[in-house]
This record gives sequence, C-alpha cells and structure tokens, in this order.
Amino acid sequence: MSTQKKLVIGLFGFGVVGEGLYLALNNAIYLDASIKKVCIKDADKQRNAPARLFTTNPDELLDDPEINVIVEVINDTAAAKAIALKAIASGKQLVSASKKLIAENLQELIALHSHHNTSFLYESSVCASIPVIRNLEEYYNNDFLQHLSGIINGSTNFILHKVFEDNLEYADALRLAQDLGFAELDPALDVQGTDALHKLVILLAHAFGIVARPDEILVNGIRNINGYDVRYAKQHQSQIKLVAQAKPLQNGDIAALVLPTLVRNSSPLSFVKEEYNGILIRSSLADEQFFYGKGAGSFPTASAVLSDIAALSYGYKYEYHKLRQQLGNKLADDAILKVYVSHPHNVKLPLTDFRSIQTIHDDPERSYIIGEISYHYLLENDWWQSEHISLLLFEDGITEKKAPAHSQASYYTSHQTV
Amino acid sequence: MSTQKKLVIGLFGFGVVGEGLYLALNNAIYLDASIKKVCIKDADKQRNAPARLFTTNPDELLDDPEINVIVEVINDTAAAKAIALKAIASGKQLVSASKKLIAENLQELIALHSHHNTSFLYESSVCASIPVIRNLEEYYNNDFLQHLSGIINGSTNFILHKVFEDNLEYADALRLAQDLGFAELDPALDVQGTDALHKLVILLAHAFGIVARPDEILVNGIRNINGYDVRYAKQHQSQIKLVAQAKPLQNGDIAALVLPTLVRNSSPLSFVKEEYNGILIRSSLADEQFFYGKGAGSFPTASAVLSDIAALSYGYKYEYHKLRQQLGNKLADDAILKVYVSHPHNVKLPLTDFRSIQTIHDDPERSYIIGEISYHYLLENDWWQSEHISLLLFEDGITEKKAPAHSQASYYTSHQTV
Repeated sequence: MSTQKKLVIGLFGFGVVGEGLYLALNNAIYLDASIKKVCIKDADKQRNAPARLFTTNPDELLDDPEINVIVEVINDTAAAKAIALKAIASGKQLVSASKKLIAENLQELIALHSHHNTSFLYESSVCASIPVIRNLEEYYNNDFLQHLSGIINGSTNFILHKVFEDNLEYADALRLAQDLGFAELDPALDVQGTDALHKLVILLAHAFGIVARPDEILVNGIRNINGYDVRYAKQHQSQIKLVAQAKPLQNGDIAALVLPTLVRNSSPLSFVKEEYNGILIRSSLADEQFFYGKGAGSFPTASAVLSDIAALSYGYKYEYHKLRQQLGNKLADDAILKVYVSHPHNVKLPLTDFRSIQTIHDDPERSYIIGEISYHYLLENDWWQSEHISLLLFEDGITEKKAPAHSQASYYTSHQTV
Repeated sequence: MSTQKKLVIGLFGFGVVGEGLYLALNNAIYLDASIKKVCIKDADKQRNAPARLFTTNPDELLDDPEINVIVEVINDTAAAKAIALKAIASGKQLVSASKKLIAENLQELIALHSHHNTSFLYESSVCASIPVIRNLEEYYNNDFLQHLSGIINGSTNFILHKVFEDNLEYADALRLAQDLGFAELDPALDVQGTDALHKLVILLAHAFGIVARPDEILVNGIRNINGYDVRYAKQHQSQIKLVAQAKPLQNGDIAALVLPTLVRNSSPLSFVKEEYNGILIRSSLADEQFFYGKGAGSFPTASAVLSDIAALSYGYKYEYHKLRQQLGNKLADDAILKVYVSHPHNVKLPLTDFRSIQTIHDDPERSYIIGEISYHYLLENDWWQSEHISLLLFEDGITEKKAPAHSQASYYTSHQTV
C-alpha cells in the first residue's frame, strides 16, 4: 500500500554529495520532499543555496518536530554517529551515506532503529548508484547466494586501471586520481582497502545475515603492487583488481575478504574500468548477475540518497531478511586461499607456513611463489603485508579447508611457471 | 510496513518455468507461500509432483476463495488473458511471465488491477532474473532516463554470439540454439524481434510512462544478417547484436525500436554473451548503469517469479511512477537513424529516400551504403526488410530530426569506407 507521506528533511552536510542532493531534490518535482534546514560546520563558507537554509546547530534539525527525515552525508564519523543515534531515538527516519559509521556500528544501529520502529536506509553507502542493497533486500531474499564479489572502491580501481591500461607508475596514478577528485588528499582509507572493507561488512548483513566487525575480516590494499606483478598478470590474461568477496563454504560458514586479486580478462569484473564499481552475484536460482555503475561522485551518490528518500515516502524499511531467517551464518573460521606472492630475490618466504606450494619462480629481478595458505594464518601474521612483498589472490582462489597437508610442502623449483 | 501475509498459490502451467518455480518454492522455507493447486492442459503427462496437485479445470483455482495469488506461466496467450482478467476481477494478486499477453494488453491490465486495487507483478516477463522492472520502479522513479538500451532476447543473442565468436553460419547457429533449448522449434517470435519488442513495450511503461502498442514501434529481426555484414562489423571493432532502445529526443518524445545494431567492442553490450541479457541505462543522476544476467531458462525465470511472490507477502505493487507523473511522454513521431544497409551489387536502393548519405561502397561481392534515414519512413516502407537486404543501426545512431536535407543527397562514391 502506498500512503505517500510529505517528507520534511533536515540535511547534515553540504559538500559534493549534500549539494548534489539539494540540486537533485529541486528537480524531483514529483516527490513530496523538501529540505527545511541544512546543518554545516563552517558558517562562513560560500555556498550555492540561500543563506537562511543553513545553521551550525545540529539541534535545530534534531529537535524540530516538523522534520521527519534526517539525511546525513558528512565525513566526520564521530559526529555522524551522534546525529544518527539522536535522530533514530527521536523517531525520525534516517538516510546515511557513511559506510564507516555503519560498518563499525551495524549491530547497534540495527537494534536501535528496530526498537524505535523507524526506517534507516543507506543505499548510497555501498557503491553509490548501483542499487545493490535494495536488490539484496528485495530480489535475493529467497535465493541462496553462492558467491558475491565486487569492485567496490572507485579510487583504487581508477588507480589500478591507469596502471594497467596506461602503464602509469602507481605513484603517478595515485596523483592523477587525487587531481581528478577520485582519491582524497589522505588516500589511506581507500588504498589500504579499508573503505572496501566497510562496504563489505554492510553487504554481509544483507546478503548473508552476518553482522561482522571490520577487524574480523582479512583485508589488504594495493600499495605493494609493482610492475613485475602487472607483467605477470598481463602474461596470464589477467588484471589486478581490489576485490571484495564473500563465499559460503561447504560447511555454511562465509569466507569474506578484501584483497588485490588476479581477475581474468574474461571475467565481468575485468570490465570494470576507472572509477566505476561492479558487483557479481552468483545464486542458486538467478545464476550469474552483474551490476555495474558509478560507485562515487556527487550525482551518482546523490541519486542513491534520493532513491532512499523516495522509498521513505512509501514507508520502506530494510527487512534484513537474511538476519531474520536466523540462518546462523557466521564468518568462516578458516578457508584456504590460492595466492601469488612476489618478493625480492634475496628475501626468503616462510614456505613451510603454506599448506602447499605449486610453483617457486626464482628470478634475480623479482621472485614469486604460487601456493595455498590459510585465511586464518594471513589474519594472524603480517610479514606478507610488509613493503617489499606483494600478495595477490587468484579470482577463484577461496577454497575449503582440506585435511592437513603433508609435513613436507611439495613444490617445484626454478623458473617453472603455472 | 510489513505485515506478512500467508500466500496460497494457484499455479497455471507446469512446464520448465512452472516446475522450476515449484522446486524453488519447496526450498524457500522462509517464505510463507505454498502452491495449493496447479492447472495444466494435458492430464496424462508424467510430472515430477504429486498427482493430487493437478487439475485441468481453471475454475478450481480462480473460484477458490482460499487461493489469494494466481501465478501464470503458460505459453497460450489467449488462455493467459482469460486467466489474468478473471484472477484480477476476483481480487486475487497476479504474477505473470507472459510478455506477449502483457505487451498487447498493457493499458487494459493496468486499468483493471488499479480498479480492483490488486497487485499485478511480472518481473519474469522481461529478462527473467535481471530485476529491471523492480529497479525502474524503485530506483529510477525520480531520475531522468537519458537512454535505455538492452539485449533482451536470449535466443537471438545466442545465435549472433555463435555467428561472431565461432564463425557459424546463421542456419547452423539457429539449429544449435534449438538443440540447446535456447530457441523454439518455431523460432519466429525470437528471430523476428517480436519477443524483444514485447519486452520493450513493458519497459517503456515503467521507464517513461508510455503505454505503447507493439505495432507502433519499429522492429526488425536478425534473419537477413550475412557473412559480409559480420566481416564489416569485425573490421570496425564491433559486433552485431539485436538491441532494443528507448531514447528521449530533445523535444521529449521517446524514440523506441528493436533493430540489429552495430555495437562497439568497448560497449558494455558487447560483453553480453550467449543466452545472457544485458540492460544499459543512462540517467541524469546515476550516470551509466549496466545490469547483466540470464534472461531465460527454468531457474532464472523461476527466480524472478519467486521474487515477485515474496514481494506480494509485503503487499508490494507497481506504482507506475512515470505513468502517474503524467509526464505526457509519447513515442516520437520521428527520429533520424544512422544506418548501414548492405545489398547485392545489382540491387539499387532508393537513395533519395535517405536524408543523407555518407558512404556508398560498391563491391561485386556485396555493396553497402551508410546514411541517415527517417524512423517514420522505415515504419511505413518494407523494401529494407526484404530477403536480400540487411539494415543495421549504429549503436548511437538515434538522432534528432534536423531541418530538411538538401534535395540532392550528398554522397561519396566507390569503395570509400567511413
């Protein structure tokens, strides 16, 4: 049933997304929604909207009974949390784009807004304009997901695309990304994989009913990728992408991670260029599905926020079907990962810590090994993240834990490639 | 709000989709829905379900007050229409996969179920498991679509893919498609473009608020595509795909068509292989989005039907936002299409009927011209559809009607290529 409610919005933030939303709402003449007040930090900054719209006092929005929707699109996670908690407790509907806030407080936020019976929507927090959360909620609620993988951070994909397609050095590609606004001045959150990790945490809740903590999940970024790795990938009809994956193992536990990954040129994910995002879903019934679109930027993000606002006018809320089904899913204790690890010739890797080795390639320029290693081991150890070592996951490299390997790792030596 | 209703289903049809749905529902243990009765035509046929489930009498379903959902997945359009009309008039919710039924009766069906205040869902009628209608309804309802194009018929895409990738002759590719179940014994509906046309009619309603009749829309199939065209495409880094397009012109009217199209290798649509479907949406806010998945088959289609059934348990219905917005959109009177037309050397084309000619390529093997021609003209004339002539649209070949061309068409002669 659709009883359209008039939405009176209090907007926190007027940066690229906030202003994009303001413009989009002005044009959405068929939506009965308007921004009553905008809360910003810097009162003196010049803005493209009437001065009377703005305030620096959050309570002007949060305490206003006429405002029934809070939209939060700010960068400050601590402030965003305070806003979210007060908005929900005041019975206001909430739309947020803050993936870090949501990923780090998911359990609490779900419990709070369920308790207050309000809507809390955040499509824009994961892949901006690709309606992945909406689809997981509405379309896959009765389908069994066999594999979810995605390129969900536009900055790192832009950088890697420039490294692969235009043969840029990593540092130059990063600088270009910053110049074009695809990476922050402090790009750490992106290039270390943390941003993709936050989005994966959110996806896990809607795809598998798991509320995970970011620190439980294996993650590494793209900073150690080097020209040798790039050449290896090209020689093997692949690209290197930062891919977030979630895959149910045979025992039902979900292996989840964010790692630089060797993606075959034939894979849909290799199609994801520049700052675009792409999500690949394999499910029992629907088989293979691929969604592709802009994962960041003023208007793509604003489009997702606008879509959430429109949904509020119909009383829409996330049902968290997978959570409610109490599937008892949990993150996998362990999984086996097939990996490529390159390193300087004179650096010795702890080979006996691998469950098996397929290839040892010794090369004065740079050496690499290919083998299988435990997810849990990578979570517990960090030598593989050190500056001169580069670990890449093979695209279908998440497998089950088998019976323990022989005490002697089996291997081939010297210049043999897989 | 979500008040989960128990769904008691009457299912019409137990072919590949009906049986797929039956199996899928058996596994959807978190959905409070069950099939009470299945109506089929042939009582004697062996089926993989208890005999007590089946009846040949439609009224056992339509007159049963306990049955609150009718699911219709049969081939017979006339019978499907009778079922649909009676189901809606009886106040039952309706889920259908019958694109021909819906495309040919869209106005009547929308009016009827609005009048009776019931839900009528048909995600499975367009691209099976790709949730395109759901996304047009839920996500793009306040965004302005600039271009919608798609490969929405799996049979023809499979055939064309085999012709391009495996160098099969059209007739052999068709036979292979039939052997694999991707094309019917009578493939006319697919290869003539009619199936894609029906789906486009449905998309136009949700994307642009237009209720069009199939016969108002320009369509041609793939039967005239020949080896020479294939070579031309490959030489120009393109493939030939059967593409349905809808594009607003500057005056706001929507140019809609289904034609074999030269798709660049860099386009997302060139990525759509074999029996897969793909939809490319360009909108003001979200920018470019691409959805890809299986457009046919037992389980992919059943997954879409299952998703609609699940939505019914939440009282979901299509809002037809774009229709309600009364945008006043209508099909374009005219548009200009940039086309390639190949023909036997000795067959003369009516060149003065083109608005302009860019290229005339004379070749004893086969000749072609490239030029601009009126949409309206193609709708009104049929020489271009005759057996020895092959017309291909360029992927971005839909343009505005300009000031009338000079009376002398300007052209280049002899072996010059664009």
